[in-house]
Amino acid sequence: MTAEQIDRLGAAVAALLPGVERRAPCPLEEANLPLPTLEPPPSIAPLCSTDRRARSSHAYGRSYRDVVRGHRGDFAAAPAVVAYARSEADVAAVLEWCAATGTSVVPFGGGTSVVGGVECPGAVSLDLTGLNRVVDVDRASRAARIQAGAYGPGIEDGLRPHGLTLRHFPQSFECSTLGGWLATRSGGHYATVYTHIDDLVESIRAVTPSGVWESRRLPGSGAGPSPDRMLLGSEGILGVITEAWVRVQDRVRWKASAGVHFATFEQGALAVRALSQSALFPANCRLLDPGEAATSAGISDGSALLVVGFESADHPVDAVMARAVELAADHGGHLPEGVSTSGPQQDAGSKTSADTPSEASDAAGRWRASFLRAPYVRDGLVQLGVLTDTFETAVTWDRFPALHTGVREALRRASKEVCGGGVVTCRFTHVYPDGPAPYFTVMAPARRGGELEQWAEIKAAASEAVLSLGGTITHHHAVGRDHRPWYDRERPEPFASLLSAGKRALDPGNILNPGVLISA
Amino acid sequence: MTAEQIDRLGAAVAALLPGVERRAPCPLEEANLPLPTLEPPPSIAPLCSTDRRARSSHAYGRSYRDVVRGHRGDFAAAPAVVAYARSEADVAAVLEWCAATGTSVVPFGGGTSVVGGVECPGAVSLDLTGLNRVVDVDRASRAARIQAGAYGPGIEDGLRPHGLTLRHFPQSFECSTLGGWLATRSGGHYATVYTHIDDLVESIRAVTPSGVWESRRLPGSGAGPSPDRMLLGSEGILGVITEAWVRVQDRVRWKASAGVHFATFEQGALAVRALSQSALFPANCRLLDPGEAATSAGISDGSALLVVGFESADHPVDAVMARAVELAADHGGHLPEGVSTSGPQQDAGSKTSADTPSEASDAAGRWRASFLRAPYVRDGLVQLGVLTDTFETAVTWDRFPALHTGVREALRRASKEVCGGGVVTCRFTHVYPDGPAPYFTVMAPARRGGELEQWAEIKAAASEAVLSLGGTITHHHAVGRDHRPWYDRERPEPFASLLSAGKRALDPGNILNPGVLISA
Repeated sequence: MTAEQIDRLGAAVAALLPGVERRAPCPLEEANLPLPTLEPPPSIAPLCSTDRRARSSHAYGRSYRDVVRGHRGDFAAAPAVVAYARSEADVAAVLEWCAATGTSVVPFGGGTSVVGGVECPGAVSLDLTGLNRVVDVDRASRAARIQAGAYGPGIEDGLRPHGLTLRHFPQSFECSTLGGWLATRSGGHYATVYTHIDDLVESIRAVTPSGVWESRRLPGSGAGPSPDRMLLGSEGILGVITEAWVRVQDRVRWKASAGVHFATFEQGALAVRALSQSALFPANCRLLDPGEAATSAGISDGSALLVVGFESADHPVDAVMARAVELAADHGGHLPEGVSTSGPQQDAGSKTSADTPSEASDAAGRWRASFLRAPYVRDGLVQLGVLTDTFETAVTWDRFPALHTGVREALRRASKEVCGGGVVTCRFTHVYPDGPAPYFTVMAPARRGGELEQWAEIKAAASEAVLSLGGTITHHHAVGRDHRPWYDRERPEPFASLLSAGKRALDPGNILNPGVLISA
Repeated sequence: MTAEQIDRLGAAVAALLPGVERRAPCPLEEANLPLPTLEPPPSIAPLCSTDRRARSSHAYGRSYRDVVRGHRGDFAAAPAVVAYARSEADVAAVLEWCAATGTSVVPFGGGTSVVGGVECPGAVSLDLTGLNRVVDVDRASRAARIQAGAYGPGIEDGLRPHGLTLRHFPQSFECSTLGGWLATRSGGHYATVYTHIDDLVESIRAVTPSGVWESRRLPGSGAGPSPDRMLLGSEGILGVITEAWVRVQDRVRWKASAGVHFATFEQGALAVRALSQSALFPANCRLLDPGEAATSAGISDGSALLVVGFESADHPVDAVMARAVELAADHGGHLPEGVSTSGPQQDAGSKTSADTPSEASDAAGRWRASFLRAPYVRDGLVQLGVLTDTFETAVTWDRFPALHTGVREALRRASKEVCGGGVVTCRFTHVYPDGPAPYFTVMAPARRGGELEQWAEIKAAASEAVLSLGGTITHHHAVGRDHRPWYDRERPEPFASLLSAGKRALDPGNILNPGVLISA
């Protein structure tokens, strides 16, 4: 964002949070960056960089905490070396050196972690974005072999000529990679059925300090516990994912979307529950509370907004949309802007609106535009001195009302105590037949210089509330280092023992992303 | 089956396999059963039995090999003790004794393993069928807490008063238990979308020698690798599953089914591929080759038969069925008996035909009746001296034609060499967008007394062909002891190291179902 854009954002935010003011970030040349402490051997030296730009850009992810530190020019947690792998052999060579020297190594894709997943001071940051090809396409099985460092848009570019799409659109789509999605169990954009990257995987290949881990490419199997499901969510502690066979789809030809208004968020939640249990499988089913509906979709009458959409590559979706609207109406929903439909689109090989989830000019469309802008707005908010973060979870329907109330209250109370006030909103990002994935956003006036401590207090308050009210510490942001205390309480203790023992077997030197998920 | 029924079966089979003749099984009182070698301590003695009936009925599963040995009165592999747990405390007490004495212990549910999953000579067989209650129902989230030893019909009986169903119908439904389904990643009856029990799990509770393993009840999570996915398919080597929260559904109200004929199995396979990639999500999508269509569904014109069906609790399914028929017709399918539909059914709380997948009187209905009878027919075939087994796998569409040809040829060649001839048929039991799950059946004239050696040769030939042609050694029958050699070659070696290390951490005495999945 330009300074001018940030000032405009500041004027808009001032209505909610008075007194915000832009401060320019510390220039990189003035930033605090420890001297590199490692010297790679000649065999891998050509892959490695120790310059300030490389190391500072691999120091952090994209959390509020990360952006604040970058803004301050605080790169104390920078890696000692960035190794840019161009092949799997490079990955193996870097791991070999790290194992031999006992050096920590952190796989780095797009660097969009918001949970401290890539932060490891003095380590080797292993940049995978040189492994960025769509290697094979199997049209009959609708599957593709893709390298782990490929970014979202590159994946779609590689599949488009085949009339195919991975159809996995996390909010970080443009800046994140397949390997990162797999290592963190990315949630994707779609609200129901096959939304998590977990369900799109045929096989995964990874390099571990004990050799290559590659599962057989299969549409389904019952042969023991799934090896893929152990790498999914492993966050770089078991091995470095180098490529995967993933399930791809024909490009969407029919679409319908609608914005349904509800008097309250609670009423909308009942409609979403009915929809999630209908087996209609909407592609989109996002419920915004009145606060989010106002700021993200321009709804000015205090309604909650349900953005519901259907898509198909094979058949019209009018009938399922009609039934969804009927279910919503049964729960008090109304559609001031009606249903917008499109299709069939024939040019499946060219770049069309089917590339991305929805493109309406109505409330649903405005929400989408706002959704895609959100990650970029965060930088501006930090410059303005606004503390902002998101807390996401999933919970069963029976526990949802108490969790919703409890987490909002915890966030409001903490914002007031820590920052003197703040704004809290909530939406559903994904829904399941047995419960929603609520996503809370907080914005509060930060104290310059005290942002990290303020953030830590608010984060702890939200996390305690989520855990005590039956949610998971993370639905799709992963664990990293930030969620560790609550993750440790959430997971079954024997599973932690199994994971620790398994990691020791594969990574006896504990070089792989130490501190994430388990302790040595 | 009565002797008379078996003789009628023999007359029918004689057309394919001349010379079959019934021999009565060895009576239990004459069977060879080792003397019990263990004496349980007084604390658990009341749970335990060492009598012949208890031990012989827990010696084996239901594979051909098992039925042959039972028929011969060979119970050499019987457990020393059967412990009947009535509570989780009983499970913990039995494990404690086994750990203290270094005694192997095998969790036993319905005992329907067809892969040697419950066979452990001299061990303690821990019978879980006393833990058989539907404990809690959460109507809002459509979830239920069910004990591991509950059989399929008992589960449905417990859910029916709430208008709910688990809708998980493996072929062994009547004789198998929730815990067994979870431990072996049961496939269920439904052909697409949520068919594996894996996808129906909210949380699992298990007792390990190192304490209780219980995951948080959640609709979805991204917090590290899924603990549930490690217990799913663990086949009793990590812990004894005692209960689970599972996702249940509203009872089906609308149905449509049809039998589509194709000139060849290959042509039918192309139609099934199109259907599996359409996102129409049929509840049933089984393709029978001409041999199966003739014996299981009375199709006499040499056609392959596709049994396709749709079901919904929420909305009519005519439109999706019409589109499926259109797709099938595009690939040369025709429907001599048309589409049969039913619904809406209103009495969701009473026992209706919606309890089970389909009840038509047409080809689809005949296939279903045959499908449910199959497990019982096997006993009769063994008495008649017919070697019979099934080999199931899953493979991507690009590899399917070669696998289909190769496995059939391997089975025909092996049957001819080993038994002098035999009949080989194939069907799809499940289909995924990226590939089918083919299921091969072989019937051949056995040599009395040589059945086990003959079976081993045929099993090895089929398994080698499956593995070398890109399939999995098991799609839904699990690994047990019979699939071990091929499972070891299929799984990633680093995953085997992780699993071994994890098991050692939880079960340092290696008492839990030793020999299954990994070696000590």
